[in-house]
Amino acid sequence: MAHEAIPLKKLAEQFASLPGIGMKTAWRLAFYVLTMSKEDATEFANSILEAHEKIKKCEICQNFTEKPVCDICSDVTRDHTTICVVETPKDVIAFERARGFHGVYHVLHGLISPMDGIGPEQLCIKQLLQRIQDTEVHEVIMATNPTIEGEATAMYLSKLLKPLDVTVTRLAYGIPVGGELEYADDMTLSKALENRNEI
Amino acid sequence: MAHEAIPLKKLAEQFASLPGIGMKTAWRLAFYVLTMSKEDATEFANSILEAHEKIKKCEICQNFTEKPVCDICSDVTRDHTTICVVETPKDVIAFERARGFHGVYHVLHGLISPMDGIGPEQLCIKQLLQRIQDTEVHEVIMATNPTIEGEATAMYLSKLLKPLDVTVTRLAYGIPVGGELEYADDMTLSKALENRNEI
Repeated sequence: MAHEAIPLKKLAEQFASLPGIGMKTAWRLAFYVLTMSKEDATEFANSILEAHEKIKKCEICQNFTEKPVCDICSDVTRDHTTICVVETPKDVIAFERARGFHGVYHVLHGLISPMDGIGPEQLCIKQLLQRIQDTEVHEVIMATNPTIEGEATAMYLSKLLKPLDVTVTRLAYGIPVGGELEYADDMTLSKALENRNEI
Repeated sequence: MAHEAIPLKKLAEQFASLPGIGMKTAWRLAFYVLTMSKEDATEFANSILEAHEKIKKCEICQNFTEKPVCDICSDVTRDHTTICVVETPKDVIAFERARGFHGVYHVLHGLISPMDGIGPEQLCIKQLLQRIQDTEVHEVIMATNPTIEGEATAMYLSKLLKPLDVTVTRLAYGIPVGGELEYADDMTLSKALENRNEI
């Protein structure tokens, strides 16, 4: 379209290439950037470059960090014998937000998914095994999503970990707190019933 | 939160400062930026800076453009005697997408809104008056939104333009094409009835 300034169109296309951002939202964001002060726009651009340059994977847990070893792995007050295995760094944020977990994490950076051509060798599984062999680990909690890929990855890992003399556990299934039974799916309801607790 | 890398948090906050982007989406976008290649991230950052640096307001219609005079204003095949007055550059895009209009535009960059402290002097009204005095203009179409501010701005402008010997018109009100009568508000329905056409 001839009536749109090219740098503006390019910026809108950049926004549209982000996940979950449609063309309409992308244009809105691009126009908003034009209304920002020069300083704010520069800061925005720099934060993209900076995040990309400075953030690496933690040598131990593979979570994103700007240090060689992340804050959680270098925190001596945490229980380093309990490792919670998650798919993404976002899951670590979710667990930390919920509090209650005082062990450490291991980020797989994906799940086994033959349909998408992702095999175990593309995940950070090697580093997990190394960690368990090198340090004292009593329990590994499988906290992958309750999806087919999440389950498959948890199963695969638990088989790998069995010979290493470590307890492997899985997050409990059940009805979500604050959810409504009416909207729970059959599978969740049966699991919630099966794993019922005495009160 | 100690477990989040600072440059990542900063980037998420930058995204969250954009309109319509909540904290959850902002984090998702920040994580996505980390998965981009270095080239893509650099291009994204540059397009922000470039849009901000290169895009100015057209000397004639005040629409965003990277040239002194925008493509629409420099298009000799368009009818320069008919000016469509809109609030934002997004409105120009909407009209151009709809086709059918072959005149030129004038972008006010806002609406009169005493509640928000925006008076006529903060809009590009001076430039519109200058334009009408300097060139031959037969018709000015008020195409501001059908909101209180849009109406007030259209009324204000039409009073200003009356002495300049130019026809001032307003976009038609009515039911939106493809809309359902059931969901049309009373005001729209009465306007649609009032302005009914013979078929």
